Amino acid sequence: MMHAVDHIGIAVANIEAAMDLYRRIFGVAEFHREVVPTQGVDVASFDLNGVRIELTAATSETSPIAAFIAKRGEGIHHIAFRTSDAAGELLRLDAAGLQLIHSTPQPGAHDMLIAFLHPRSTGGVLMEVCQPRTTSTTDI
Amino acid sequence: MMHAVDHIGIAVANIEAAMDLYRRIFGVAEFHREVVPTQGVDVASFDLNGVRIELTAATSETSPIAAFIAKRGEGIHHIAFRTSDAAGELLRLDAAGLQLIHSTPQPGAHDMLIAFLHPRSTGGVLMEVCQPRTTSTTDI
Repeated sequence: MMHAVDHIGIAVANIEAAMDLYRRIFGVAEFHREVVPTQGVDVASFDLNGVRIELTAATSETSPIAAFIAKRGEGIHHIAFRTSDAAGELLRLDAAGLQLIHSTPQPGAHDMLIAFLHPRSTGGVLMEVCQPRTTSTTDI
Repeated sequence: MMHAVDHIGIAVANIEAAMDLYRRIFGVAEFHREVVPTQGVDVASFDLNGVRIELTAATSETSPIAAFIAKRGEGIHHIAFRTSDAAGELLRLDAAGLQLIHSTPQPGAHDMLIAFLHPRSTGGVLMEVCQPRTTSTTDI
């Protein structure tokens, strides 16, 4: 079962401008930076009491983030929920009638295995199932 | 400063259908139910490892949630960030150039004082500043 909010993904048009904005709002001292080629994203993230805020920009026009911003503008893109068994969780959710975008976990940022559920089946909320590949004490 | 994600607000058209959906996805055993007349909302919430998920339906056609769903459909509505001093935080954010929807804290669900920042100044993200009126050990 998914037991915690792992991170919140925010779609941003310009990663540097977004980092400056979040420095002003939250006093962020340092961002974790990561490009995930398989997802077509450039991510700047920071931690707020155990929940990561991921500012996510597109790395190309074919990135899902570029499509999202073109359709809806900048804003909250998805919520990621942590589980210790992403593959098993996808089987359970599929059996429960949820529509999966990925039927098996994919490599994501922060050395996670990730998969998305289709917002058509979740009341318009893009949900990510994520599993840390290295289980830390907070996941036990 | 805002130091934690307090809750994530999800705009839903039908609160009973949404509760059923979240039972299937997260195995929610029990929801906290609350109507907040001043905000025009009917809320069903549950806790995920310290972050509340708030399913929020409109109680009238003039509710901000009704306007949101009419414009964008169901989905993620806002992120609320916890602080121990909402009034002071609003002064700081105003001075930092953020646009406030409420210049002073208002009564919200869960005995919180709340205020919203305008998404025009936050990269399209509706952010809520919230302060528990009764400070618990988790807020120290």
